[in-house]
Order: sequence, then C-alpha cells, then structure tokens
Amino acid sequence: MAREEKSNKDNKGITAKKDENFSEWYSEIVLKGGLADYAPIKGFMIIKPVAYSLWEAIQKNFNSVLNDKGIKNGYFPLLIPDSFFKREAEHAEGFAPELAYIAGTEDGEKLALRPTSETIIYDSFSKWIRSWRDLPMKINQWANVIRWEVKQTKPFIRTREFLWQEGHCAFETEKEAISNMNEIIAEYKKLIQDFLAIPVIIGKKSNAEKFPGAETTMTVEAIMPDGKALQMGTSHNLGQNFSKAFDVKFKGKDEKDYYVWQTSWGFSTRLIGALAMVHGDDKGLVLPPNILNEKIVIVPILFEDSKAKVLNEAKNLSKKLNKHGVILDDREGYSPGWKFNEWELKGIPLRIEIGPKDIEKKQVTVVRRDNGKKEQVANEDISAYVEEMLKDIQRDMFSKAEKFLKSRIDEAKNINELTKKLKEGKIVKVYLKNDAKIEKKLKDETGGATSRIIEDVSKVGKCIICGENVKTIGYIAKAY
Amino acid sequence: MAREEKSNKDNKGITAKKDENFSEWYSEIVLKGGLADYAPIKGFMIIKPVAYSLWEAIQKNFNSVLNDKGIKNGYFPLLIPDSFFKREAEHAEGFAPELAYIAGTEDGEKLALRPTSETIIYDSFSKWIRSWRDLPMKINQWANVIRWEVKQTKPFIRTREFLWQEGHCAFETEKEAISNMNEIIAEYKKLIQDFLAIPVIIGKKSNAEKFPGAETTMTVEAIMPDGKALQMGTSHNLGQNFSKAFDVKFKGKDEKDYYVWQTSWGFSTRLIGALAMVHGDDKGLVLPPNILNEKIVIVPILFEDSKAKVLNEAKNLSKKLNKHGVILDDREGYSPGWKFNEWELKGIPLRIEIGPKDIEKKQVTVVRRDNGKKEQVANEDISAYVEEMLKDIQRDMFSKAEKFLKSRIDEAKNINELTKKLKEGKIVKVYLKNDAKIEKKLKDETGGATSRIIEDVSKVGKCIICGENVKTIGYIAKAY
Repeated sequence: MAREEKSNKDNKGITAKKDENFSEWYSEIVLKGGLADYAPIKGFMIIKPVAYSLWEAIQKNFNSVLNDKGIKNGYFPLLIPDSFFKREAEHAEGFAPELAYIAGTEDGEKLALRPTSETIIYDSFSKWIRSWRDLPMKINQWANVIRWEVKQTKPFIRTREFLWQEGHCAFETEKEAISNMNEIIAEYKKLIQDFLAIPVIIGKKSNAEKFPGAETTMTVEAIMPDGKALQMGTSHNLGQNFSKAFDVKFKGKDEKDYYVWQTSWGFSTRLIGALAMVHGDDKGLVLPPNILNEKIVIVPILFEDSKAKVLNEAKNLSKKLNKHGVILDDREGYSPGWKFNEWELKGIPLRIEIGPKDIEKKQVTVVRRDNGKKEQVANEDISAYVEEMLKDIQRDMFSKAEKFLKSRIDEAKNINELTKKLKEGKIVKVYLKNDAKIEKKLKDETGGATSRIIEDVSKVGKCIICGENVKTIGYIAKAY
Repeated sequence: MAREEKSNKDNKGITAKKDENFSEWYSEIVLKGGLADYAPIKGFMIIKPVAYSLWEAIQKNFNSVLNDKGIKNGYFPLLIPDSFFKREAEHAEGFAPELAYIAGTEDGEKLALRPTSETIIYDSFSKWIRSWRDLPMKINQWANVIRWEVKQTKPFIRTREFLWQEGHCAFETEKEAISNMNEIIAEYKKLIQDFLAIPVIIGKKSNAEKFPGAETTMTVEAIMPDGKALQMGTSHNLGQNFSKAFDVKFKGKDEKDYYVWQTSWGFSTRLIGALAMVHGDDKGLVLPPNILNEKIVIVPILFEDSKAKVLNEAKNLSKKLNKHGVILDDREGYSPGWKFNEWELKGIPLRIEIGPKDIEKKQVTVVRRDNGKKEQVANEDISAYVEEMLKDIQRDMFSKAEKFLKSRIDEAKNINELTKKLKEGKIVKVYLKNDAKIEKKLKDETGGATSRIIEDVSKVGKCIICGENVKTIGYIAKAY
C-alpha cells in the first residue's frame, strides 16, 4: 500500500483519457491502480496485491461452485512430455507454436511447460478409470500456464504466463459431457455477470476458432470499450478425441470396454483485465461491490479543534457498517482531497465523508464511485441506505455495460458494410460458412477480424465471403 | 473418490507395516490413501484431491495469519533471468546445481525456472521502494517452484516441483527484520503444532546449513518415525545481502540513502508428507481434526427390515452434528466393514455407527481413529461428547508425537557414541564448531548426518569433530 501512496503523490493519478487513448489509459490504470507491473522478462507480468486479491475473490466464488458440483481440486505437473502433445493431432497442431521447453535434462525426452493440461491429466485418467463405477471423474486445478505468445502482450489480457483454472471431467455418455459443457459455461456467465458486472454473450465457436482437439467449444464473450471482443472463458466438449488418444477406457455395466466422453473448461486472470477495462474511468478503477471484501471507505474530515470528536464518530460509523467491509482512512499527513483521489483510483464503491458539520446535522456525506453522485444521509438511516446503495451500484454497473454491449451488436449485408462497422468498434452479425478457409479469407479481408461465435439459424442466407447459401451466422469482431 | 473405492476393493488397504518397512509403508499410504500419484516425468508427482484439500486447509489457516500481519499476496513470474542469480554470490552458488532452464528463446538471456524468488522479487522492490514511507513492504506468494534434485525423490518430501508459500519483507532497520524472522518462525511452529499436531523444535541453522544468501536462518524441525529429521519451514534474516545486490534503497527521514533490511520465509507441500508419516498407521491415514472440514463419518448399519428407520435416524444425527462436518456414508452395495476400512484408510477422526440395536437403546457407537477406542454414547449426550472428543483427539495426537520426539533427543560425547545413537534413529546433541568444513567432515564420518540446529550455549565444550573448545551445540540427525 505504502508504495502506491507515494506514487500517487508523485504523479497524480491517470493522465490519459479512456475515450481518447484507450490503450494508454489501460496501461496507466494497470500500473497506477497498483494492479500489475512489468516483469524483467519480455511478455511476463507481476500481479500486485490489489489485483491478486481480486483473483482470490474470483477463486473463492468459483471454488464454491466447484464444491456444489462435486468437482475436486488437485494439482498436476508443470512439465509435460512432448510426446503427449503429439497423440491428439489437432491439439498438437494448435499448441505447437506456443510451446516452451525445458533445456536438455539427463532424462532424454523433451519436456514442455504446460500451455493447458489435457494430455497429462488424461494420462492419469487412463490409469485411474477402470469401470463405470469410477465415473464421472471431475477434477479442477488452479495453476500457472505458459504460452510463448508471439503477438504483442498486454497485462492480464495476453501474457506468456498467466494463472487460470482448468476443469477436466470424464463421463460414461456423450449426453453427460455435453450437459457438463453447457452447465459450466452457464456458471461462467453467472460469475462474470453477477460477480464482475460484465455482460457477456454465450455461444458456440466456429470450426476455425474452437479449442484444438474439441468437438465443440462454448464461449463467453465480452466487449471492451474500444469495441474489441474479449474471450472470457471457454468450455469444451472433447468427445472421445482424447480418450482415444490416451486410451481412457472403462468397463460398462455390460462388461464391455468403452472410451469415456470428456470435457475441459477454463478461465484465467484475463478476467481482471476485463474488470479494469470495462468499468474503469479517467479517475481509475471502478470495482463492483460484490467482488470486494472492503466496499466502503470512510474519510474523516479533520480540523484541529474537532479532531477527536470526528474520529470517534468515524469509528462508530465504521463499526456500524462493519459487515460491508469498511476501510477507515484516518491517516495523518494527507489531505481529504488527496485521500479521495487515492480511493477513487483504487475503485472502492462507496466513500463516506464525515466532518464536524455533518456531526452537527447528524448526517454523513456519501459518494458513489461509479457515477460520482453525492448525497447527504441521516446518520440513523445509513445502514439501510448503504445496503441498498451497494446493490444499486452493482446493478447499475452491469446495466451500463449491458447497454454498451447491446449498442455495439449490429448486422451487415456485405463485406464493405462489415468492414465499416468493424471500424466503428462493433460486433457484426453476418451469414458465414462454418469453414476454416472461409474464416482465413474473412480475417485477411477485414484486417484481422474473426468470428467470436457461430450461430445455427433456421433461415438460409448467403455467406458474406463465399456467397454460398448457409444456415450459420457469425458474430464478427476484432478481438484481443 | 470413485476411483479409490475401486482400488480399495481391489487391494484391501495398506499391506506394509509402518514399524517394519517404513519406506514401503509410506509409499502405500501415499498411493492407496489417495494423496498422490507418480507423474510420467521422473521426480514429479500428482497431488490428488485428498492431499490438495489438506493444502487448501493449510493455505486458509496461514492466509489468515498473513492478513492479520498486513502481508499481502501477489504473484511473480515463474521465469527468472539467469543473471539475477549471479548477483548474490552465496545464493548463486547454493542454487546453481538445482536450476532448470528454458530452452533457447529469441530473447537471448538464459531463463531459469524459479527455485525460490528472492532475486526477481527484489528486482521489483528496487523499483517500488523509494522512501521510508514505502516501508515495511510485505509480500507473499503461493506458487510452484522447480528444483532439479539429483537426490532420490519421495512424494511430498522431495520432488522436482512442489507448491509452497514464500514471504518477502523489507524493513528500515535490522531490528525489525530480525523480529519479523522470529515472529514468522513462531507462526510456523503454531501452525504445525496446533493445526497439524506435529511437535517441532525451533532453532538456528549452522553456517553450513543456512539459506544461501541469508545472515541467519531459523528452522522448525520435526522427527519422522524412522528417526530422520524433516525441515518443516524456514525463516531467514537476509540482512542487506540482497538489498546491496539488487540496489534496494530508501531515502530515510534524514533524506539520506539506506539499503533495506530483508527477510524471506517459506513452507511447502512437504507438510502433507509429514502429516502422513507422523500420524499414519497400518490402517492408513490418521488426520488431526483441526485440519479437516469433515471430521466425522456416520455409517448406518443397514438391514432390510429396519433400513428406513436407521437411515432416518442417521440423517437426524448428521444434522445434529453438522457443525463439525459430517459425511453420511449411506452408499448401497458396500458392507459396513468395507466402509470402516475405507474411512480408516482416509483418516477421518471419528466414526459413528448407528444400527437398529443402537436405536433401541437410544445410543450410538463412536470409534476414534487415532487409538481405535470404541464407546457407546447416549443419543442425548452425543453433541457434547463429540465436541470434547475431537479436542481430545487433537491433543492426544500431538502428545503422542511429542513423547516420541522427546524420546529421540539424546546426547553424545564422542563420534562412536554419536554414530551409534544416529543408527538408533535419534537426534543427537553434541558440541560442534559452527564451520562448514567441520560439518563436511561430520557428514563423511557419520554416513550423511547433518546439524539440524545449532545452539549457542554458555558452557564451553570440545567439538566432537575437531576437538577445539566451542560454545555451540549441534543437533545432529539424518535428515530427509
């Protein structure tokens, strides 16, 4: 904490404007908001305590979901034999460009740092699963992964190392696997919308964009303020692709051998980047109340002659509101104005100011971080007021972001219209053939846009790229 | 879970005897107790859900200690530039043999996988710390580390990858650093003794055994049933060794520049291995109640004619004891005896059996896992009984282990006596010069024993190796 105080004193918060230079603004909010710092190694980052505590809140929330579903946490090795990747052809091809390896060891085989853990986990599944009694098997791990990105990196959004959870389940039937894939993507949506106040669209990935080795990938996609889409989490139906590659078989009730049906799913510390991008403003972070342990900061307005009285009143107030998590900022040597800036930068949802005049009037001054609205509230009403207001803030933050998302979903009839709307920062719905070659052309012709979701529809239309009649609509956007 | 059931059915629990073949017994308890599995890579392990949940309990406990002390969690990169290690000479020499590197990347510099993170964290500290106002800076991270061990590995006790916490603090004064080192080692002792019920001895490491780069290392050492010592956690006063190497300076209140005083400290998933070794028996794991969410298992004894009644009674009992964490094992198709074995293998502290006869007599049968004692308890007394019994178990497990530890601390006057007592599996106190060369000789002459702790004493004695007069006593043992 001490450091940020100093930095703020030095440089007075965010200088770039979110609307004018989004990329620079994001860098500033990450660095000055104390979320992260650059590492001494290219493409890596340091997750600072402010951001790590958000990750811990997300972990706690999702661990309770896992627990309810009987999914257990475990931990698998960081290093994976190179030969494992080669067993599932699509998986191998998809991850090959991003693999980092350990320098030669005495053991002979090339060892990769995990970019994801399907292969090494299913090697264990093949030993652990024998009969239908062993199913379903449901495991999750919280871990760091390494993907040697060649694209430009950005803190939280794309880095060579990140933290994530990856869930891996094996079932007797395809039906159970599909249902698990859908169930988890619904939980992701719930986590991201209700907890992080970020609206998302759910849908299926196209053949070009799905997870290497999956039959089907479901995704939750959000839109960032610059109009770029951000993939927030994915859930895959792996079919029997990996169980065949890793020989994960079980003896059914009929004593015959069957391959299991599998899913995997994950989200990462990228969510913290989205949180900053979507809700932040020119004063700094704006954090949704639900994710925070400490949702309120009390700043006593101190004058020499009334100091003891005001501090005392502030402490009482702090006790009264304790269940919402209160920071009492009674530090000496900092002006109230400096403290206001500090807590605005950090994104605490509610600020309560209390000074000698407030005490006289038996009131306090409450300021909302999300919209800056200031109100005088009678002391006796404050508990109920705060309770209501925190709910309002959470809901209003979501509504505002949802309104933005809706305003940015559009349609196009031809490639010119598409390109124009992409430039306006929109997610554009167009008829699109679900085919990797077509998507390659789409990317070339739009300067890098991709389908974020592909939707099966009943009405036929002409593919915007090849002109063929298709019954699939792509949600096209530039993406991080 | 499903898998363990199956395995148990296949192989009827632990077959090796703890007293006869400790090493084989440990392998079995780890594998059959569902704690871990071997990985497809030499020296690595898979932490299975049973063990990972113990790690989560330890994390939760220690996170609350960190929180009380204002120490914040963050996350630093897995990869560290090789040049960083070279800056602190002792540190470089100490860790060089265990470093693993990433295979050549485009970026030029050799990158090591972290064996510990002093260097990369203090590189950040040098940027983050400017003035006395920024101090103390206190950071912790929960992370995986890689040490390319050449010694034989053993699950949890020594593996090439393990999970741990590492705390890193910087202070204005040496006094604060020393006090932090001592405060943390005291917290480790508390965690290990009160939570894991494992008695430890606290002390200072000798010059030969201290952390590479530290001024002083404090350690908590436990004894395993085979008489080998196990280092459970260490806390280091780093002095200004790293602040000078990484240029971590602050401007004091007098506007002059000073190097900070630093500490680092850590414990690892090794604690889980110690838990299994110390408390386990020939039936499987024995877990201390404090570490478990689910401390009680209820096994209803089901007969066709009274099934509904017994199940109903078991459910009521489960609700009644809910606050202690209850597993109600109402699975069909398994005999009570099979279930008893299963839960004994898993180490649940209390088993409650309830059958038609118990219901008639308005009682239940309670069996302690730690000593096998069986008692009939009246239904109306069960809540108070269980509450008391769980405390007794925790205390008795600790007392038993403490008695063993005390019985294994001995003294020796000469090298023959020392060697003899080491063979008996003892920690032997001898006068020993605090000198790396002397310890090298000690190791050679005893077939591998080392000083676990070195104690400053007021009475002079002759070093057991060199015969010189010294005022230091070494606690000598074979160690893992």
